[in-house]
Amino acid sequence: MTNKPFIHENFLLQNETAVHLFHDHAKKLPIIDYHCHLNPQEVAEDHKFRSITELWLGGDHYKWRALRTNGVAEKFITGDASDWDKFQKWAETMPYCMRNPLYHWTHLELKTCFGIDKVLNPQTAKEIYDECNEKLASPEFSARNLMLHYNVEAVCTTDDPVDSLEYHKQVRESGFKVKVLPTWRPDMAMTVENPSAYRDYIDKLAKVSGVSINCFDDIVKALLVRHKYFEEQGCRLSDHGMEEFYADDFTAKELDEIFSKVYGGTALTESEIRKFKSAMLIEFGKMDADTGWTQQFHYGVIRNQNTKMFNLIGKDTGFDSMAQVMTAKAMNRYMDRLNSMDKLTKTIIYNLNPSDFEMVGTTIGNFQDGSVPGKIQLGAGWWFLDQKNGMEQQMEVLSMLGLLSRFVGMLTDSRSFVSYARHEYFRRILCNLIGNDVEKGEIPASEMSRIEQMIEDISYYNAKRFFKF
Amino acid sequence: MTNKPFIHENFLLQNETAVHLFHDHAKKLPIIDYHCHLNPQEVAEDHKFRSITELWLGGDHYKWRALRTNGVAEKFITGDASDWDKFQKWAETMPYCMRNPLYHWTHLELKTCFGIDKVLNPQTAKEIYDECNEKLASPEFSARNLMLHYNVEAVCTTDDPVDSLEYHKQVRESGFKVKVLPTWRPDMAMTVENPSAYRDYIDKLAKVSGVSINCFDDIVKALLVRHKYFEEQGCRLSDHGMEEFYADDFTAKELDEIFSKVYGGTALTESEIRKFKSAMLIEFGKMDADTGWTQQFHYGVIRNQNTKMFNLIGKDTGFDSMAQVMTAKAMNRYMDRLNSMDKLTKTIIYNLNPSDFEMVGTTIGNFQDGSVPGKIQLGAGWWFLDQKNGMEQQMEVLSMLGLLSRFVGMLTDSRSFVSYARHEYFRRILCNLIGNDVEKGEIPASEMSRIEQMIEDISYYNAKRFFKF
Amino acid sequence: MTNKPFIHENFLLQNETAVHLFHDHAKKLPIIDYHCHLNPQEVAEDHKFRSITELWLGGDHYKWRALRTNGVAEKFITGDASDWDKFQKWAETMPYCMRNPLYHWTHLELKTCFGIDKVLNPQTAKEIYDECNEKLASPEFSARNLMLHYNVEAVCTTDDPVDSLEYHKQVRESGFKVKVLPTWRPDMAMTVENPSAYRDYIDKLAKVSGVSINCFDDIVKALLVRHKYFEEQGCRLSDHGMEEFYADDFTAKELDEIFSKVYGGTALTESEIRKFKSAMLIEFGKMDADTGWTQQFHYGVIRNQNTKMFNLIGKDTGFDSMAQVMTAKAMNRYMDRLNSMDKLTKTIIYNLNPSDFEMVGTTIGNFQDGSVPGKIQLGAGWWFLDQKNGMEQQMEVLSMLGLLSRFVGMLTDSRSFVSYARHEYFRRILCNLIGNDVEKGEIPASEMSRIEQMIEDISYYNAKRFFKF
Repeated sequence: MTNKPFIHENFLLQNETAVHLFHDHAKKLPIIDYHCHLNPQEVAEDHKFRSITELWLGGDHYKWRALRTNGVAEKFITGDASDWDKFQKWAETMPYCMRNPLYHWTHLELKTCFGIDKVLNPQTAKEIYDECNEKLASPEFSARNLMLHYNVEAVCTTDDPVDSLEYHKQVRESGFKVKVLPTWRPDMAMTVENPSAYRDYIDKLAKVSGVSINCFDDIVKALLVRHKYFEEQGCRLSDHGMEEFYADDFTAKELDEIFSKVYGGTALTESEIRKFKSAMLIEFGKMDADTGWTQQFHYGVIRNQNTKMFNLIGKDTGFDSMAQVMTAKAMNRYMDRLNSMDKLTKTIIYNLNPSDFEMVGTTIGNFQDGSVPGKIQLGAGWWFLDQKNGMEQQMEVLSMLGLLSRFVGMLTDSRSFVSYARHEYFRRILCNLIGNDVEKGEIPASEMSRIEQMIEDISYYNAKRFFKF
Repeated sequence: MTNKPFIHENFLLQNETAVHLFHDHAKKLPIIDYHCHLNPQEVAEDHKFRSITELWLGGDHYKWRALRTNGVAEKFITGDASDWDKFQKWAETMPYCMRNPLYHWTHLELKTCFGIDKVLNPQTAKEIYDECNEKLASPEFSARNLMLHYNVEAVCTTDDPVDSLEYHKQVRESGFKVKVLPTWRPDMAMTVENPSAYRDYIDKLAKVSGVSINCFDDIVKALLVRHKYFEEQGCRLSDHGMEEFYADDFTAKELDEIFSKVYGGTALTESEIRKFKSAMLIEFGKMDADTGWTQQFHYGVIRNQNTKMFNLIGKDTGFDSMAQVMTAKAMNRYMDRLNSMDKLTKTIIYNLNPSDFEMVGTTIGNFQDGSVPGKIQLGAGWWFLDQKNGMEQQMEVLSMLGLLSRFVGMLTDSRSFVSYARHEYFRRILCNLIGNDVEKGEIPASEMSRIEQMIEDISYYNAKRFFKF
Repeated sequence: MTNKPFIHENFLLQNETAVHLFHDHAKKLPIIDYHCHLNPQEVAEDHKFRSITELWLGGDHYKWRALRTNGVAEKFITGDASDWDKFQKWAETMPYCMRNPLYHWTHLELKTCFGIDKVLNPQTAKEIYDECNEKLASPEFSARNLMLHYNVEAVCTTDDPVDSLEYHKQVRESGFKVKVLPTWRPDMAMTVENPSAYRDYIDKLAKVSGVSINCFDDIVKALLVRHKYFEEQGCRLSDHGMEEFYADDFTAKELDEIFSKVYGGTALTESEIRKFKSAMLIEFGKMDADTGWTQQFHYGVIRNQNTKMFNLIGKDTGFDSMAQVMTAKAMNRYMDRLNSMDKLTKTIIYNLNPSDFEMVGTTIGNFQDGSVPGKIQLGAGWWFLDQKNGMEQQMEVLSMLGLLSRFVGMLTDSRSFVSYARHEYFRRILCNLIGNDVEKGEIPASEMSRIEQMIEDISYYNAKRFFKF
């Protein structure tokens, strides 16, 4: 039908204005990937990939889910099949992924990372496999060089308060020009569901902080030591993964009793767990406010729903899904409590279930206070929503209920060194959305310089100004 | 790029059929604004506006939220800055509002009210400010003349049962040709959360109705006196603002005990509050059925979520957001109870959270009874949904799950005398939606006279026939 | 405007690729209607229809709801008006149904069944009525001939375990070339809300199975006898209608106590009801796994919400609507329990409330295990969602969160012999969706043979391979 390659320069750009906005404004800007799950050790050691199979299929549970859905046996997914056999299964599955985001991501990565124009299918599998592997064997395709290739300016990894951050230090001290910064993710400090795991964690925290922990306030003191250390290492964001928001009432006395109970090995009641989490979230919020960090909340996931597979291959292997939670009131109450103490810092809320988009989109408006543009943010389409429809939906909701122009934009949330192509994907979708509005006369073309600035802001400058790395 | 002004005659009309439907059918029809929050005193006294700042920014919490989000200090929003300084901040914020409904509303109002074609931004701010203020100083731009300018036939304000309606009377007696009718909004009569505020309200109700109130039935008697008075003053609609629907079981004895308790100053339990509201809603429904009024329910908002700002500047200042409620069963049970007594009157249900649209869209179908076309209505996109996407979503849901052709159409829900431009906005969106279907062959062009009638019905005639003012 | 009939060969096909995919690939394929509510007796007896009124308005509560909404009295809907009078009311209502799926369905059925090109309205009512009735009087329009006319290969009706399936046998023995297979729908076996109705049902089950029922295990034994009988009669699917999923904890002892209590005539508590249903669902799942059937779950409806009409005309008369349920965790837990026993069979989950689409779309991914492509399916748009927007939404969600290519496709869920036109409707929408992607370059045109195969798979081959009738 056409000789144009699938991923061509105007991929996803459906009109002239979109083409202009992308090529003349969005494309050239560096990437600030303010939330990801890169392994900092791989940056520190400038990891080389033994094959496209390792790079693509080594840890990507999106692809694993697609393979399982397509009828591929686990041996070829997380099992002991050879790199080639696994890749071949992936190539066979690819044609069945049309309309799934993996279809676009895969071909964008082939194009932007390897310069490959071919469509991946069983016929092209071998030549693509060989070409990718040959390239990966060259130094140009090391972890660090991939980051440079994609024009990455800064990334924020995801780290536990007890983490030494040694690899972040190594990277910084090596003079690598991409900033690799830690993010404070203290989920373990409020995960009191399992007493023995919690006790282990508290012992570790006590040791690494040098604070002996005997009550709730001691936990806070120990965390503050670590928070200060993270700050010194360049951390400017926190992140919290939660099923829902917690804003129950509690007293100091209750917190100490709960701590003693769980540390002593006794399982807590549902109410005790909620009280503890409610209190801990307030403490987290105060620490971030005092340092001017941005706090992030990723809520609405239920994890590890397949017990059989959890027992076989563990967590984060593709068995998580969207929760349904009634959390509007707690979300408001949480921010209101901090706001009433003048301790509500810049905040980003990411919902997983898209039926919450509008609720979150209006909730953030309750706490905008004129101090920072876009102080409270509706997070970019997250996880299952990190695809064309999800991105468009997030931007529509934010546009209609808030100010799209103040959006801090895209992040990868990824552990992959080639997923930066998703920033390009996002920018194309953004430019197409805005371009379409201009073409339809819903945004006045006469304001083009403002429109161009908005594209650049959402692609790069908003994040740069907001996070202040 | 183009010399066409932003708001031109075919704004939002993307095809020929849409252009025909709007210009030849929708545009010319009068406005019935059957739900608004106009201050009737301003109509009675034919208010003149001292400036565009008063008109636009004096009480519009949509704009206040946008200003706060854009990083503007409260001084320039609800504070003591000068009219010009506030307007300037608004003009600076405008370019950041692209894709927000405020961007379209603002420019539609500039065009339709003031005849101004310019796009508002910091460069045009001064000339637009001066031109608007000059015009507002002339008698043509008084409250009443604005209503006449916009071809308004009738408006329904929102009024408490204890209200004297003196300004409605003054307007009527003045011979003003626009009908300014009251709406019965008895929220206070079921707001039993705060005993002392409730006692004050009951005392006021007793006084104004001449009924001494000692039990639940006395409240009903007193309200009936006022309901009759509202009927005499031309009222044909009631309205209820609720977080969710209430349809708990209760007994007459319980209601009297609850009344004694709350009137005596004791806080009620959650269950008592729900019983009381459940009972009161039934009484409200019966009154409306007996007079043939239409009852409206606006549900799903959580209000005043920012305690700090509530303490500083009070309620209705832009700190409200969407609730998440599981109310399908109560909504059905409420209507079923009235229906079983043959007391279910014409009803309009407005949801705030769009994830409820389809649920409400199917619920209304359970109580259509063939007596009045479109007897139970899915309300027009409300509050945060009163924008292009929200309107389209409401019309899609109503189309797919009910009969769009029987929709009573748009309302402003506004306290502004220039927000009538939103009726034009709605009609353009409606015509574009239908025109698009015709162009795609999803509605047969051969039925054009029926299509034209549908446009006119939704724009005007359905409301005229339904409400019978 | 145009002389093209409303339903023309490219109806809903908005681009060249869509035209190609539909006419060269989708159109020709047989229909596998794997979930419907046909009356098998009407097939066995090769029912002839006395009029278009019987065929269209005899039992279609979609149309009844539209008529009531349009202000038509019940006499002309379920009452004793003449066939012509009822049809006339329907013809008067038709122009008010523009944008409702009934408008498309009606005209598609006129065209595909009767070859009628005219638009139905009050002017054409008489000639259409006469022409349809004349045709219906001829043998070509009997129940069986309609099925042959629509190229139906197999249908699955919906049947209770106590049903004799005598008509299915008659059909099979008659040599009718369309497979008419039963579906196992054991809802009554877990409907323990009404003790006396439940006792009646258990007595019936005991009798027909020959198993005396004195405890929970006996119910299972009796059901297994019938399950085996259904299997022998060609049944390959089960179906369960539920308000929500149930996965509470229970013990064998509790189940026996609950059974004794309800069989003894005592109403159960909410918790007992949930335990019983949770247990029964596990047993249902195990039976289906052991025979390799596919289990279906239709959840999220609240039924018979209009008591007055229920008392007048009974159930399934158009007074049902969407529930709001928080069922994500139970849905996961249910499948996880079966999966942990290696008893999770092929499963299709249909949500009624579209705000659940994405939640279900991600939940199914938790239990894909590589054994069967698309083992756990997101069901086609069901009931109120069985329209253009609903179908598109279901396919978007499945595309983005799973593999559209493995979708088993459309079903009618209908009791009508002309509703097969909905398969054509679905295929047109599918082809248009995919064609549009190709035209926009979001699917590479160079992969056309794969795209064509995907269309054929979703239209027919996926179902054929999946269900193995």
